[in-house]
Amino acid sequence: MPDAQLMYEDFAPGAIFESDERTVTADEIIEFASEFDPQPMHLDEAAGKASILGGLSASGWHICSLSMSLFFDSILSRAAGEGSPGIDIVEWRRPLLAGDTIRLTTEIKSTRELKSRPGIGMLGIEQKITNDRNQTVMRLECSLMVRMRNGGLPQ
Amino acid sequence: MPDAQLMYEDFAPGAIFESDERTVTADEIIEFASEFDPQPMHLDEAAGKASILGGLSASGWHICSLSMSLFFDSILSRAAGEGSPGIDIVEWRRPLLAGDTIRLTTEIKSTRELKSRPGIGMLGIEQKITNDRNQTVMRLECSLMVRMRNGGLPQ
Repeated sequence: MPDAQLMYEDFAPGAIFESDERTVTADEIIEFASEFDPQPMHLDEAAGKASILGGLSASGWHICSLSMSLFFDSILSRAAGEGSPGIDIVEWRRPLLAGDTIRLTTEIKSTRELKSRPGIGMLGIEQKITNDRNQTVMRLECSLMVRMRNGGLPQ
Repeated sequence: MPDAQLMYEDFAPGAIFESDERTVTADEIIEFASEFDPQPMHLDEAAGKASILGGLSASGWHICSLSMSLFFDSILSRAAGEGSPGIDIVEWRRPLLAGDTIRLTTEIKSTRELKSRPGIGMLGIEQKITNDRNQTVMRLECSLMVRMRNGGLPQ
């Protein structure tokens, strides 16, 4: 199984990964918002239309969570991931409206071996969620720890 | 109703808001992870114990979403909020383990009137999620737009 996984050495700066597409329904938007972010524009079409967002639109944290799901399906499910220390920036640039179809583009921006944790490398990652009008909905930068081949020792 | 709301002028740098406490169950952690972040340490106690996190632990995006919920209940539900352009930083410092009780502390770090959007002010905010062992689980910095009294015009 380790051989089938993407390891640290398999990620090079400049590499780009595209996810599948996913259509986000009004029901999903309302369900997430009801639990975590019950602001009117995330719960109701009329309130969304009356807001700066222009329609029933997903919570920013819902967009982040959907991004994680697309990231898992397109990369992380087959990578030797060791978690993330955090997020460097999140920009919510456009609303994610009910019925929109989104996709995730992940670019590897940097790679470095961790001196503090031998056998682990850190990837610097930029992610963009794009809608079916080719607008960038969200951009984020984060870091991901990934195991190295052979524990980082010479083969 | 506008008079009952917290407006931009009601937020001063240094002000601190404490949320209620909330206990996070294993079922909640597994439900969120199944939908958005199905990494083994977020789905299974044994896998969590075998990971660096030390037990079944919430997805980082689940912690963010719970933070939003506590923020809504403690402040945003009674404020004239106009949304957020994004997040400046998220640090996941400690795992949120099944059964942990968390609370959110929100501090207003800065305030400024938006020249580009008269009648709206921007709050710079720092939030910390603390567990019942008094450890900081997550720290984040973000911005929030809030309407000004009387549209920002002199009364």
